[in-house]
Amino acid sequence: MDPISSLQNPRVKNAAKLRDSRGRRQQGRILIDGVREIRAALQAGVQLVEVFFCEPLCQTAESRQLLADLSQAAVPLVPTMEPVFAKLTFGERAEGMVAVATCPSRHLRDLVLPADALIAVLEGVEKPGNVGAVLRSADGAGLAAVIVADGGTDLYNPNCIRASLGTVFTTPACAATTVEARAWLQAGGWRVVAARVDAKFDYTAADYRGRTAIALGSEATGLSEAWQGEDVIAVRLPMLGSADSLNVSATAAVLFYAALRQRTNDDTERR
Amino acid sequence: MDPISSLQNPRVKNAAKLRDSRGRRQQGRILIDGVREIRAALQAGVQLVEVFFCEPLCQTAESRQLLADLSQAAVPLVPTMEPVFAKLTFGERAEGMVAVATCPSRHLRDLVLPADALIAVLEGVEKPGNVGAVLRSADGAGLAAVIVADGGTDLYNPNCIRASLGTVFTTPACAATTVEARAWLQAGGWRVVAARVDAKFDYTAADYRGRTAIALGSEATGLSEAWQGEDVIAVRLPMLGSADSLNVSATAAVLFYAALRQRTNDDTERR
Repeated sequence: MDPISSLQNPRVKNAAKLRDSRGRRQQGRILIDGVREIRAALQAGVQLVEVFFCEPLCQTAESRQLLADLSQAAVPLVPTMEPVFAKLTFGERAEGMVAVATCPSRHLRDLVLPADALIAVLEGVEKPGNVGAVLRSADGAGLAAVIVADGGTDLYNPNCIRASLGTVFTTPACAATTVEARAWLQAGGWRVVAARVDAKFDYTAADYRGRTAIALGSEATGLSEAWQGEDVIAVRLPMLGSADSLNVSATAAVLFYAALRQRTNDDTERR
Repeated sequence: MDPISSLQNPRVKNAAKLRDSRGRRQQGRILIDGVREIRAALQAGVQLVEVFFCEPLCQTAESRQLLADLSQAAVPLVPTMEPVFAKLTFGERAEGMVAVATCPSRHLRDLVLPADALIAVLEGVEKPGNVGAVLRSADGAGLAAVIVADGGTDLYNPNCIRASLGTVFTTPACAATTVEARAWLQAGGWRVVAARVDAKFDYTAADYRGRTAIALGSEATGLSEAWQGEDVIAVRLPMLGSADSLNVSATAAVLFYAALRQRTNDDTERR
């Protein structure tokens, strides 16, 4: 197959539309840019429709191996010339491969979680880069799932996928309304640890063991009033400087790893 | 004074050049966008040359108060029409004020730190947003200074200032080469806790009490070989998922708050 050289090629034009949320909604597909990200999607069983690649840009061993693995998995590989590829790619890394995939459709009801799972809920977080960074930290700290409630951002926004390094595919992630998420948490008997800048308790005072959800709100407005009740403990991080809050992905990383530390130590003690 | 309406106004043209690092180097000045950021600079004693403002965009109580305080501090206020203001501002928040300031010039030799200070060193971190987010977490966790070594980014890049929420002005921050930073740390008797993905020790095993520097490298290449020796302990964060590293600002937040926790508990015990 000769590399596609026309910017007017319908496959290319359709794929380029997936850079916008409107195109993603209309086609039910998403765009995955980057070697690590495509590999994560492949491993997670995301349905890859086709992968556009630009031969001269696929120079690393990782990209060569991924092309071979995609071919093995019978994913159609579409060679393109550089100007055409440039129309599909974005961001700073040019790794020579962009995949079109069926949008993973995940709902709360699909989540199958261990009895003592640790999960996170993000409410109203708008910047895709922040959501992606939280997903990446959730992956690192071994969280079982991330729920995006009343999300200002599409989980499959290209910047979210990128910032997540593809962990948006490997961590069970789903979107819901806040009402749905609260009802689901209450029905499942989750303890909620809610991050609030005005909370009474330090984050180290909370109990993160057993079935626990860490809830984080947007930087502008924080968590909504829905995050109150007997199942919720509000915690804050010490803020010793001039700013009154951390970036939401920094707060998330601190809480996720504090929870992991407590849960790991607890395991050690019990053994 | 009538609002400036011409995009060709020399003051406006000179200020707009400060959006690029070349312009900042040539003029020795920086651009500070946003109410919180300008207030932080004012409080930190940064020399404000002039502040462009767009009356219709200055609607919050905070922006009104800042205008009053700037006027009180005898900072020249320059009213502009919206199209002119749009040429100076950037980012997503339009808060109606952009300041021109003399670039703060800070060197290692200027740092005056407590004997038991906790500081951070970032080596080769390129994205301004990441550097800014690290500064913001450093401010939150009460670090005494942040050193940017072999920095791929200008501390006063507009995106860095923004991501830092202005804490780049209130936290003592300076740039240096890695060689300078290592020599300075060794001469000062600092213990260095270096974050490395392949380190032997878990981050919770390190001693962060007393005079301690937390060193973090770029995501692509990690810390250079300079970060070895008897004064250095390498630590890692558990990585339980599919990705092999966290975002540098997430790693920073976890380490800064783990250090703060240890140092605070230690204080408590001693009392």
